[in-house]
Parts: sequence; C-alpha cells; structure tokens
Amino acid sequence: MQMNSVQRTEQTLAAIHDAGDEGRRIFTRVYDEAALAAARASVDRAKSGISLGPLDGRVVSVKDLFDVAGEATTAGSAVLRSAPAAAQDAVIVQRLRAAGAVIVGKTNMTEFAFSGIGINPHYGTPGNARDVTRIPGGSSSGAGVAVARGMSEISIGSDTGGSVRIPSALNGVTGFKPTQARVTREGAFPLSFSLDTVGPLARSVIDCAQTDAVLSGQTWTQLPERDVRGLRIGIPRGLLFTQTEGAVQKAFDQVIEELSRAGARVTDVQLDNWLGAPFKLQEKGTLIAAEAAYIHAETLATQPGAIDPFVLARIQRGETVAAAHYVSVQRARAQLQQTLDAQIADFDLLMLPTVPFVAPRIDALADMDAFNQANMLVLRNPSVFNFYDLPAMSLPVNTTESALPVGLMAVGRRGCDRDLLAMCAALQAQMSTLK
Amino acid sequence: MQMNSVQRTEQTLAAIHDAGDEGRRIFTRVYDEAALAAARASVDRAKSGISLGPLDGRVVSVKDLFDVAGEATTAGSAVLRSAPAAAQDAVIVQRLRAAGAVIVGKTNMTEFAFSGIGINPHYGTPGNARDVTRIPGGSSSGAGVAVARGMSEISIGSDTGGSVRIPSALNGVTGFKPTQARVTREGAFPLSFSLDTVGPLARSVIDCAQTDAVLSGQTWTQLPERDVRGLRIGIPRGLLFTQTEGAVQKAFDQVIEELSRAGARVTDVQLDNWLGAPFKLQEKGTLIAAEAAYIHAETLATQPGAIDPFVLARIQRGETVAAAHYVSVQRARAQLQQTLDAQIADFDLLMLPTVPFVAPRIDALADMDAFNQANMLVLRNPSVFNFYDLPAMSLPVNTTESALPVGLMAVGRRGCDRDLLAMCAALQAQMSTLK
Repeated sequence: MQMNSVQRTEQTLAAIHDAGDEGRRIFTRVYDEAALAAARASVDRAKSGISLGPLDGRVVSVKDLFDVAGEATTAGSAVLRSAPAAAQDAVIVQRLRAAGAVIVGKTNMTEFAFSGIGINPHYGTPGNARDVTRIPGGSSSGAGVAVARGMSEISIGSDTGGSVRIPSALNGVTGFKPTQARVTREGAFPLSFSLDTVGPLARSVIDCAQTDAVLSGQTWTQLPERDVRGLRIGIPRGLLFTQTEGAVQKAFDQVIEELSRAGARVTDVQLDNWLGAPFKLQEKGTLIAAEAAYIHAETLATQPGAIDPFVLARIQRGETVAAAHYVSVQRARAQLQQTLDAQIADFDLLMLPTVPFVAPRIDALADMDAFNQANMLVLRNPSVFNFYDLPAMSLPVNTTESALPVGLMAVGRRGCDRDLLAMCAALQAQMSTLK
Repeated sequence: MQMNSVQRTEQTLAAIHDAGDEGRRIFTRVYDEAALAAARASVDRAKSGISLGPLDGRVVSVKDLFDVAGEATTAGSAVLRSAPAAAQDAVIVQRLRAAGAVIVGKTNMTEFAFSGIGINPHYGTPGNARDVTRIPGGSSSGAGVAVARGMSEISIGSDTGGSVRIPSALNGVTGFKPTQARVTREGAFPLSFSLDTVGPLARSVIDCAQTDAVLSGQTWTQLPERDVRGLRIGIPRGLLFTQTEGAVQKAFDQVIEELSRAGARVTDVQLDNWLGAPFKLQEKGTLIAAEAAYIHAETLATQPGAIDPFVLARIQRGETVAAAHYVSVQRARAQLQQTLDAQIADFDLLMLPTVPFVAPRIDALADMDAFNQANMLVLRNPSVFNFYDLPAMSLPVNTTESALPVGLMAVGRRGCDRDLLAMCAALQAQMSTLK
C-alpha cells in the first residue's frame, strides 16, 4: 500500500535523525514540525478531493543557499552564519509551498557553491550515499546524498558548473539543469550571475519534470510521449571523453549500445572546437571567478581567513581578472552559443558521461593539487553546458549494487527544456529495462 | 509648391558640394548617383500611387559607423580606413532602403564615437552649423550639422552618452535616443555594448518619430495626440543644473514658464542621489571605457599612435578596470534603474538642459585639460539617461537668430518611446508658438 504524505514525511525525518552526525552533515537544518504540519495539510486536502498539483505532499529539501524567511542563508559559509535573517522566502521556496510541497530541511553544500567536490570544512562533508568515505560531489552535496538515502524525495539545487548534475551522477540519482532563464533566482545566494541555474535532483525524470513545472511557475501537464526509436543522439567523442575511468566508459558505452539496439540513431560528432572553447577563452580568468570576486569583495577584504582555503584560492583568482577580458568572454560566449546551436541542429540530444570518474575518496583530496585536479575534472563536462546555456540532465546508469554510481548526461536545445525532459523520460524507461 | 524627392535630393547634394571642404568635413562619403536613383524610384512609385511609408523619398544620411555593403566602415578612425569592406548593409540601413529612403551619404563623427565634442583629427572637424569656428558636438558631429544646414533631412546617429542629443542641441535640431532594446545595432560599429543606442536627428519630432518607426521595424501609425495641458513635468534641479551658462539657463526657464502657462503641471524634483550615482559608481572606471578597451584591444597593442590622443587616453583608462568592478557597476545599475523608475513614476517627463553650455570655440579645446573638462560637462546630462536606459529627446529652444542654439532634454519612461515622441510632438507645437 502506498504511504501518505504524513507517513512519508515521518519516514524521511526518521532517516535523517537516525543517521546521527552523518544526517547533520547532509542537512544544515531540519524542519520537523513545519514539515509534518505541511504533510497533514496535504493529507487533509486529499480527503476533500483537493490537490495543489503534482508536488502536493511530496517531501522536498532545498539547498542551503535559498532564502527561508527568518533564517540567515549560510550558502555553506561560516562567514554568513551571522548574516541578517532573510525577510522572505526565495521565490522558488514560495512556489514550492504554494504547490503543497513538504519542505523537510536545508541541505549542505560547498562553501559559496564554488567547487564540484562537496567538501565543506565548516559544516562537515556529507559522505557519498553509496560509501561515506567518498565524496558526495558538489556543490549541492547534501541534495544528492539526501535523495539517494531517502532523506528527501526531491532536492532543489543550483547548478553553475555542474552543481546539480555532479552530485546526481556520483550518488546515482537524476538531476536537471534548466536553461538559465527558465527558473527565477530571486532569493538564491549567487555564485555567478551569468551562469547560475536552479534545478531539481530526484529519483526519476518525471519527478524532476514535475518539480521543474513548479519551480518555473508553469502549470503541470503530462510530458509528451517520446520514443527512443528514432531519437537522433550525437556523441561528442573527443576532449570531454579524455581521462575517463574504465568503469565510467564501459557503463556509458553499454547504455549507448542498448539505446542503439532500441532504435536510437546514434552517431559520433566532432565538436571539440566548441566544447574546448570555454576553457581556452577563460585561461586568463573565468566569468565565475570574476563575478565571485565582486560578490565576496567585502569578505575578501575583511576576513579572507574565514573562507575555506580551497574556495578562497578560486575566488581570489577573480580579483586579477581585467574588465576587458571579462567583456571579451561574454561577447565570445554569445557568438559561440549561436555557432554551437547550428552545429547540433541535426541532433535531438548530445550524450556524454556527466563525470569522467566515480566518486574518489575524501581523504585522497586533502592536498590542494589533488583537490584542484579532481575539481577541474569533475566540473569539466557539466560546465561546458552552463557556458552554452543548454539544458542538461544527468541520468543514473544501472550498475551492479556494489559498484559506485555513474551518470550519463543528456543535453538538449536552449529553451526546449520540456522536450529534453520528455526525451529523458523515454530514455529512463528504456534504461530501466537494461541489465 | 512642395518639391519632389528628386528635387530635394538635388538640392541636398548641391548644398553638400557647394560647401567645399566644409562639406567634406561633414560627410565622409556622398552617394550622388545612388541617391538620385533612389529619389527617382520614389517619384516613380508616387506616380503609381505606391508608397513605402513615411520615409519614402526622404533624404537621409547615416553616421559613418553603420555598415554599407562594399565599403570599409571607418567609425571616424584612420585605423579602420583599410578595414575589410562590409559584406552587407547594417540592419538599419537595410530598413531605410526598404522604406524608400534616399541615402545621401555618410556623416563624420568623433573617432570611435568616444567623445561628445566632435573634433576629429583624421577626417577634419565639421564646424558648428551656426558658426564654423565652434564645435559641432559629438559624437554624431556631421549628423547634427547636416540636418541644420540642409545637407540631409534626417540623419541617423548613435548615442552612448549623448552622441545624438549633444549635436542636436548644439546645432539647433531635434534628436531622439530610444530605449536601448528598441533599435537593433547589428552592423553598427560598437562603442559600448551596454549603452549604445541608435536614433535619428531631424528638423522635427514628427520626422524623428517616423524615422524611429522604420529603424525599429514598426509599422508607422500617427502618434497619439497629447496635450501640453496636464502634462506632469519634473524638473530635477540640482546636480545636473550646476555649471550651466546663463544663456542656457535663461532659455530653459523661459520654455518651462511658457509650458506652465500652457497648463503643464511643472514641479521641481530632487533626484540627485540617483542622477549622481552613475558618476560616483564609475569613479574607478566606466562601463564604456572597459568595453572600449576590449573592442580596441588589438589597436591598443599594435598601433596606439594611430588613434587621436584625446580618444586614446579615454580608451586606455579602460585597460585598468577590474572585472569585479565592472560587474559591480552592472549589478548596481540594474538596481538603480528600478529605484529611479519608482522615483519618477508620478511624472510623464523629466526636463533639463541637454547641454549646460552653448557650443564653445574649437580652438579653445586644443589643450587636453580644457578638452576633458568640456567633454565631461557636455556628456554629463545626456549620459545619465543612457545609464538608466530611459528614452530621451533633445528639442531645440527658440532663440534669436544670432544666438547660438540651446537644447532642452525631455526624458520619458523605459520602453515607452512612442509616448515620449507623442508628448514631445505636443511640446514642440507649443514651443513653436513662443517668442
């Protein structure tokens, strides 16, 4: 028998609390009372035959960079512990509440959302859902672990260079980064105005699609049915396939082979000129670093020592970026977006591994060089599609129970977010039949 | 009897050529044959009862930063003399041709559009229409002089910090700077992506409105009739009224008094916090300088000596601007726009002098300090409304024949460009009755 919202909320809260210190590293706040009240209201509505939509009664967590009225928004930073309390909920939190969602807590994250690893010296590092000695991925670290461990049905994350898709991949859940303009960022602590996006992590594409409808303020309607047969899938083998671990490559190739067998029209496509451009262009400084240097200017000036040194180093690089360089990147980006759009016009989807490795051990990244190298590599594939502002999902690939999770990234067309979700729903249905 | 397009084109061409060297300083190119052919086509259409709209057969010039297919676009620079020829007309040139306009030539300008004075050491400095020993105003120097001297009925300029409104004011013509998004800049050589706008200079508001319809790709319809009676006019006395010459102040006050008498509801409004903000914010570097430093990076590196030293100094300041500062200005600008919008919500228009002085003598600005001081002051009032992205017109104020021209600036609401044009048409009708 299916459990109702109160039962599921109780189960979720129990899972968080039973995890003890680990639970406290995954969640920075838990709203026991408010969550149960929201769940009861949902159950009561259901008795009267009333529904607020597809998220009514669903158990949802939000990353600790979304404002909740009356609380300081820490964004994973010790500096912000004493920030003024938010005057109102972030717009997406308002939308979730209006849609009847049960907000169970706030999830931990990389400080200021500025790394893809998920280590946080201030609030602790949530262990990977499959093996707590391994990294959770970031920056929405707690969000990914919470969904994988049944500590929320849906987590809301933000994704500037992969921060939704990386923890999805490394913990074996489904994550969606929309086209930037789709979801408002009002009331979300920023990392990069140019690149920040807001999206869900959940157990399925359908859950992500329903959540996306609420986040983007759309009325939910069934996704159009798409067939894997005939889908035109481009595989951009080359640069973004280098340094890929055998296990990841094998899992990826198996899925692609199965999709081919199911009738998808899979072809390799050479896009290295475009996929490599974001890195070449930003050698003298990234948009993220420049914008972060502005956002954190006061902290950099007054208490740099309070910032995680691994994050601090990344922000400080932004202080040296010249405005003319910043403008050049923005201009080139606008041009490149158009040329890549034209290059991929014949494909419904691009597919590649979300992350080229499975979750490494936390203790292997204590050294800054090792950390930086892993961080660059974990961000590499996802960040390209923030630069190009294309919607992208990470789908978990079936691996054996004991193996560490692998994510497959499907990339759609700018603004065609519902199309991507519909295609990924078909892919996920197909992939669940694989073994 | 009204002259037809061929007669008016012939008259215009004669005016240009009869002016000899002065004509060659106003126009960098004259299209005698093509203009006459376009005029004949217009006359022939009219005989068949066909019209391409309100600009059919009108004699129009374009600033020398708009692409014309087959020619290098010099943007007033010697560096660009040998630039590759434009492959196609700028979009606004395409629209003018499609609307039946007679394009008579390209008008001279400040190098790279980067000053409000109008001095150009490479192509010569057009003298002011009223007194050739005085500055024409810039950067659309030739555009303003051409209209005032009957060398084109309508000139198309660009306005980044006043470059349409300043030459309008100093030569006694009407100029319109639209909301930035209104007119495409495709095929226009840029000064600042954030601030550049494209608009007309002409003999009347109606000519400007009809030209604006063509430039913005709208179908022309009569402007709604507005009455001066009841117009709510705010006069932001304070910062932007300082350092104003007596003649300008007197001409301005006379108009305001007359408009009051005609029933306009004129009140002073204190907006110095907002009107001063663009200057305070940009003390460590302007958006224009930063963007210009990017645009001209190659020239700065390879042949800075080929640039007018007065312009070069302004661009080089952009090389020292930090990306974090640039981002901070952009963010603050977006916020300030909203707060000023709220402050002026009770007004239909703001009014102030376009330029606080009448055209100074060219030889008085040979010294860089004198130049810089005059340039800062000439740009001061207009540039505020590029920063706030509000549409604005400069209307010529009736002065005695012998006196130098004075411009009155009317500022509207963002995106309400037609409203502003309609109100200014009413103002201009009222002002023409004054003496």
